[in-house]
Amino acid sequence: MMEETSTQNIDKRIQMAAEAFQFLKNTTVTERAEFMNAVADQIEALGEDLLAITHTETSLPLARLIGEKARTVGQWRSYAKAVAAGTYTAPRIDLAQPEKQKGDLRKYNVGIGPVVIFGASNFPFAFSTAGGDTASAIGAGCPVIIKAHPEHPKTSQMMADAITAIVNAFGWPEGIFSHITGTSYEIGTYLTQHPDIRAVAFTGSFQGGKALFDIANRRENPIPVFAEMGSINPVFAFQNLLETKAEILAKEYSTSLTLGAGQFCTNPGVLIALKGNPLDRFITALKDEIKGIAPSHMLHKGIFESFEKHKTIALAQPDIEVITEAETIANEGQGRAIVIKTTARDFMTNPALSEEVFGPFGIIVTCETHEEMANIAQQLKGQLTITIAATHEDLHENLSLVNLLKDKCGRLLFNGMPTGVEVVYAMQHGGPFPSTTDARFTSVGPDAVKRFVRPISFQNWPDAFLPEELKDENPLQISRIVDGEMNSGSLKLQTT
Amino acid sequence: MMEETSTQNIDKRIQMAAEAFQFLKNTTVTERAEFMNAVADQIEALGEDLLAITHTETSLPLARLIGEKARTVGQWRSYAKAVAAGTYTAPRIDLAQPEKQKGDLRKYNVGIGPVVIFGASNFPFAFSTAGGDTASAIGAGCPVIIKAHPEHPKTSQMMADAITAIVNAFGWPEGIFSHITGTSYEIGTYLTQHPDIRAVAFTGSFQGGKALFDIANRRENPIPVFAEMGSINPVFAFQNLLETKAEILAKEYSTSLTLGAGQFCTNPGVLIALKGNPLDRFITALKDEIKGIAPSHMLHKGIFESFEKHKTIALAQPDIEVITEAETIANEGQGRAIVIKTTARDFMTNPALSEEVFGPFGIIVTCETHEEMANIAQQLKGQLTITIAATHEDLHENLSLVNLLKDKCGRLLFNGMPTGVEVVYAMQHGGPFPSTTDARFTSVGPDAVKRFVRPISFQNWPDAFLPEELKDENPLQISRIVDGEMNSGSLKLQTT
Repeated sequence: MMEETSTQNIDKRIQMAAEAFQFLKNTTVTERAEFMNAVADQIEALGEDLLAITHTETSLPLARLIGEKARTVGQWRSYAKAVAAGTYTAPRIDLAQPEKQKGDLRKYNVGIGPVVIFGASNFPFAFSTAGGDTASAIGAGCPVIIKAHPEHPKTSQMMADAITAIVNAFGWPEGIFSHITGTSYEIGTYLTQHPDIRAVAFTGSFQGGKALFDIANRRENPIPVFAEMGSINPVFAFQNLLETKAEILAKEYSTSLTLGAGQFCTNPGVLIALKGNPLDRFITALKDEIKGIAPSHMLHKGIFESFEKHKTIALAQPDIEVITEAETIANEGQGRAIVIKTTARDFMTNPALSEEVFGPFGIIVTCETHEEMANIAQQLKGQLTITIAATHEDLHENLSLVNLLKDKCGRLLFNGMPTGVEVVYAMQHGGPFPSTTDARFTSVGPDAVKRFVRPISFQNWPDAFLPEELKDENPLQISRIVDGEMNSGSLKLQTT
Repeated sequence: MMEETSTQNIDKRIQMAAEAFQFLKNTTVTERAEFMNAVADQIEALGEDLLAITHTETSLPLARLIGEKARTVGQWRSYAKAVAAGTYTAPRIDLAQPEKQKGDLRKYNVGIGPVVIFGASNFPFAFSTAGGDTASAIGAGCPVIIKAHPEHPKTSQMMADAITAIVNAFGWPEGIFSHITGTSYEIGTYLTQHPDIRAVAFTGSFQGGKALFDIANRRENPIPVFAEMGSINPVFAFQNLLETKAEILAKEYSTSLTLGAGQFCTNPGVLIALKGNPLDRFITALKDEIKGIAPSHMLHKGIFESFEKHKTIALAQPDIEVITEAETIANEGQGRAIVIKTTARDFMTNPALSEEVFGPFGIIVTCETHEEMANIAQQLKGQLTITIAATHEDLHENLSLVNLLKDKCGRLLFNGMPTGVEVVYAMQHGGPFPSTTDARFTSVGPDAVKRFVRPISFQNWPDAFLPEELKDENPLQISRIVDGEMNSGSLKLQTT
């Protein structure tokens, strides 16, 4: 299906990346933003061909792919805008104070070096070869070695060609972008262990992400791994909300749970609520909603088989009850929506029920008391998102529970559903372990660039040899903290 | 010497810290800044008693301790100012766009949870119980469990009492600050493995820091470790500079190398230069300088013994030559300055010569060619600092070498010496591995607070339930990125 890049060739590409880094780290934010905007234009210009190929490779509907392509182009542009503003260089200048024998200190963030990125299968554009990780790394000034996802090789090659075309058009070193193909786990290990690699980004399974994290930390010089590894994205539904909106919530939940055959990392896999009449109404409404969901093709055989396997494991647990399943029988490769029910006690004592089932699969957890809800919250592992389905009155009554849930997620929703991850500054796509390996960073939104920089401080450095971002004149007109205060001006003008 | 806090008591204190975190994470930046300023006042008020005790415990001269105390008070105040400005909450608001079906998203940084801090011996005030790590963590909204350094127990207790007095005066939960004492390695392991601990900060040896890093990464839920572990802080001296200033450089180097008995993590342990007459002049001048340095008491027996041990190992290497040693014989416990010489080839092929000798110990590495200097740069491990002793002409002639050295350090000096770490925004005290475990953060300067926060995003959250930092009205009057642009105002005023 996909040719395996040889180790020899990987070594060569990483060597080229290391050399290209010496060039790229000295480009200005303005230059990198221009590059990123050119990549955005190039991807935007890819037409029907791309969509048709990706549709064939992923089974994703064309409408979804059109949306995802626009999102991907938007990512390059919005990250470019943030890079051009100098946001991630975070310049700080403390001017010399000769009378206090204090030297001149100037700090800014610079790229950390060549980054390996593993393409994800569930977003062939937005989280793959030309996805947000690649845009972030290049925005930070880091060459990228992309490990293509083997389930959409042609899509990956088209995206790689688009980026390479811009590298050539700019006359930048070829090593800025490399496209590695292959299916073996060994390639991932080899890339992560390579001494010239400085960071890794990954979106996929817990097993895959955690393995890379461990490999990276056992290196002679450990490197950061930004792995997004999955999440059950719990919904805590409270009493007043259920009483007034059980049916509306059922419709929202069902739609979110089955969107894109449930193949989103923010899929709301668990709903937790007090037992009683309002929850019964919710369940009754949910049965009707789920029944009518037509099964749809999952991304690839591996994902489908994994869905079936994990669903089977969940269904084999004692004390669970299937409450609803889509009526239409699924064909081979299709995900058929199903929702089961269990008690808080079983959920808390049986870890198998807290495992993510990637696909259209939900668990309703019924609690006897508020205390049981709080106990579930206390025991919950880190999540990408948690949703509070509640009225203002519910919030007032459950403040300490909500406060606790803040420690368990990267994004906390007040009603609505977690699927649909906006590419904006205020997005946090990254939660406490095990949803990601590093809750301090986001993989979506312009702040994703932050993952690939580190600060360097220049002491008493001659202006002519400083990076543009730190020169007196502030030629890039970026915001800097000068002697502790925000300053967007030139220091030359101010001192004359 | 120091009572061992029992495991039971540690568990109790960590439990208290976890509970206090629920309080502390909901304090505003203003409240935490007030607390920090009160701690600064409290420490400042500690008088002769403190200085006398610390002098006895550390052998550090009173003048140095007076300076370090002022620095420590200054750290609390300058970090408080940065916290009050909201710098580390980094608020981002993307307002709802109902016509595009986009919800309201608001993100800010919140404390990550209870932090364990290991006090360092070489800065009993600035990097110990009430040092920069403690100020950073509390500024971030994280309770602190300090593991006191066993070599200055009374100093540590006085500092702990000062902080506790402010916790009580503010009526804040006692668990915000805990003082753990003991000498066993097991205590460090136990603290780092505790499931309620969310981060670790450490300043000390490579062995100690790397052990904590490994323990933290092998936890079921890995946590960040910010360990500053040592550095040989190379000085690359170039030809034109040496020709014009060999004697001045020798004086600067000698002073920095022997300052505080060489017990600074930024001590310039290695100087690299081309062989020839200018370097010979430097060495001749250095001999005179070093000869006259009076040996002084090292911090404690362990540090003295370690100095003697590592010095002996270095002196036992083949192909080294002692070029100068302080004339005065050292008493037991005193560090006697010594400088040796080796060739670039020996330095590069014998890893023992790149090991830090913590104390007044220097190596002059003589290179045959510019290429050898470049090879040393290429091979160099990560450092806290690198110093370029050069003229502008030297810089012009060695741009690619200097560019490469940027990847190897956190702070790059143009002349001057690396000892003396200013507590300012533009300071970067943290370099690539193995000088620290995480080059993306600094342990000195207000940016040190960043180590202990993570972002959380609130989607469609009612204004009344948002943290103050994110409310429409912007009651704290902090700078926020609103719809992609900097904004310090109230959103209420702007929309009416």
